[in-house]
Amino acid sequence: MLGNFKYVNATKLYFGEDSLKYLNDELPKYGENVQLIYGGGSIKKNGIYDSVVEILKANGKKVVDDGGVMPNPTADKLRDGVKIARENNVGLLLAVGGGSCCDYAKAVSVSVNCDEDPWEKYYARFEEPDCEIIPVGCILTMAGTGSEMNGGAVITNHDTHQKIGHVFGEEVMPKFSILNPRFTMTLPKNQMVAGIYDIFNHICEQYFSGEDNNTTDYLAEGLMKSVIDASLKAIEDPEDYEARSNIMWAATWALNTLLSRGKKTDWMVHMLGQAAGAYTDATHGMTLAAVSLPYYRHIMPHGLSKFKRFARNVWGIHTSSKTDEEAAEAGLIAMENWMRKLGLVMNLSELGATEDMIDGIADATIILKGGYKVLTRDDVVAILKESL
Amino acid sequence: MLGNFKYVNATKLYFGEDSLKYLNDELPKYGENVQLIYGGGSIKKNGIYDSVVEILKANGKKVVDDGGVMPNPTADKLRDGVKIARENNVGLLLAVGGGSCCDYAKAVSVSVNCDEDPWEKYYARFEEPDCEIIPVGCILTMAGTGSEMNGGAVITNHDTHQKIGHVFGEEVMPKFSILNPRFTMTLPKNQMVAGIYDIFNHICEQYFSGEDNNTTDYLAEGLMKSVIDASLKAIEDPEDYEARSNIMWAATWALNTLLSRGKKTDWMVHMLGQAAGAYTDATHGMTLAAVSLPYYRHIMPHGLSKFKRFARNVWGIHTSSKTDEEAAEAGLIAMENWMRKLGLVMNLSELGATEDMIDGIADATIILKGGYKVLTRDDVVAILKESL
Repeated sequence: MLGNFKYVNATKLYFGEDSLKYLNDELPKYGENVQLIYGGGSIKKNGIYDSVVEILKANGKKVVDDGGVMPNPTADKLRDGVKIARENNVGLLLAVGGGSCCDYAKAVSVSVNCDEDPWEKYYARFEEPDCEIIPVGCILTMAGTGSEMNGGAVITNHDTHQKIGHVFGEEVMPKFSILNPRFTMTLPKNQMVAGIYDIFNHICEQYFSGEDNNTTDYLAEGLMKSVIDASLKAIEDPEDYEARSNIMWAATWALNTLLSRGKKTDWMVHMLGQAAGAYTDATHGMTLAAVSLPYYRHIMPHGLSKFKRFARNVWGIHTSSKTDEEAAEAGLIAMENWMRKLGLVMNLSELGATEDMIDGIADATIILKGGYKVLTRDDVVAILKESL
Repeated sequence: MLGNFKYVNATKLYFGEDSLKYLNDELPKYGENVQLIYGGGSIKKNGIYDSVVEILKANGKKVVDDGGVMPNPTADKLRDGVKIARENNVGLLLAVGGGSCCDYAKAVSVSVNCDEDPWEKYYARFEEPDCEIIPVGCILTMAGTGSEMNGGAVITNHDTHQKIGHVFGEEVMPKFSILNPRFTMTLPKNQMVAGIYDIFNHICEQYFSGEDNNTTDYLAEGLMKSVIDASLKAIEDPEDYEARSNIMWAATWALNTLLSRGKKTDWMVHMLGQAAGAYTDATHGMTLAAVSLPYYRHIMPHGLSKFKRFARNVWGIHTSSKTDEEAAEAGLIAMENWMRKLGLVMNLSELGATEDMIDGIADATIILKGGYKVLTRDDVVAILKESL
């Protein structure tokens, strides 16, 4: 049943091919100095950087450059970003990129006016912000993380081999996000499919928990079917605007807090994947893909009815002539076939993980308690070995 | 495909059995004088009125009483409400009731600081607010209209025989809404099922339009399945908290602008039902139920693929051995069976409409152009006759 909860999400979204122009509507609300956050520089090649800078200048803004955000933004980079924001007294953190840039912007936003080390405060001690927060805006160039409409900010610490997400509250969510599906078409195909699996797994993490049969589960199933449908079109033709726009919109709703209202959530695939990511620095969505099936097969007996429902409602499998176990397994087989069709990396070895890393990855795996089974360390090791 | 759109909805929701206590968190944000809006007084019998007044007083608020909001709030009542708000310089319009109370509160909110007659400005000339808006909060006691998280405000004018909805923008949406499923259990069963059909039809109005096959359609199907599932449990046992909570949550998402993003919408069932409602003063959800099947059968040939999809994805009908027409009709038959199981009123005669009203109702029916067929006056008359 639906438990008690609060829901608020005030992020303003501008969606579509013409959405960048609405940056003009937003900029006047914020201070003169804008910290322009981006990644490895692909936005300079594809013209998005120039378009954004042109709009910033037309609105009389001073551009404070902060490029080089890596796919898994580090604690060191975060500290640098905070320094840039302080030195330039910025009034807006404008992330132009994928989830890494948005996450990083949010982590900077809560740290600029805070004296303590951001990693220690937010990622080691999991404290909440108690200082003025700098507003964040996002211009998304990759669909996947949902960071454009939530308070999540994942940061990696290479010193401690940790990749940790802090989910901040409504006051840290982006004030606005600009979602242009055409911008996501500049990505290589393997980045696209990694993003697609990230979306799908966000839904799974919230769906595979509890014995619920509620509105949220039905919404989750609808969203999963949409992702499956659109992804199969997008891998045939990455220029299919309809498919790419549906993937982008599904990504936002997969992780903007709606699907977790009033229910327990799991998130162990992310814990396992993030731990592996901290060791291999592999693409987030691929680490999730590599550990998913071993994890789900491991916990399936503890959440059989939900896995059976997944088979029936998401994959259209006729379950009436099957045992619960057969039905549940048929759903996972259908999911596996879809994952292989997308060309996802299906094991950690391909991502650079080796047998001798298993202990370290297991140590770095945070055990959460919302799923169908609370994993022991032996479970974690077994799942990681099966994922190799 | 998904068109270009904006999405923002900042209404803060408190959901669950303990949600009323959060009124204490909200009240300090608003002025001292609170206009307490409610209906026929049932909240005085079931104790909700006393609980709310107690919280208001504990927060040092002056209660400005504004009861007697009728199921279809009238332009005259609206004018009275505006007068009360002006005379008492209210800082918050707090609606305690169903959609009628919330709609009325929003209509008052945009009219208090406006010199013109509200009916003329917003319902005859469809202007947008250009004056300061008084904030609105809702404590919902009936699930159905979705008014708790949108900008809609339907007002009835008995002088002109018109029942018209104005959908205002984000600035008119409630600042907060308190959703306690237990409060909805005080309703008689026929009000519950009327609300359930209102929810379902809100989804249909947005689903049956365009040749879309997008994320929004999948979300709509999930929401429809949830309403069907929960409604069948709620009519067996109206005290089933799980069912009532799922109905309440589905109602909010059925009409908070999500399902209409990037696509065309229809709304002709509401136009027909509201016109019939202006003549009969019948319960909103029942007027929708009475005109729905004649309307959908009338337009089905023009949107065959969507009706076939509805049969397959919402009602689980195997469509492979059927012609498109057979499949589409099978979906409507399944819907009809469900409607009869709920005990909905299936024709306008039972609601007090007579043959001689048809011309007048047809005159009062606003023709919208987003559906599968733009109706002629002859179409409207034919549908109304079939609905009698």
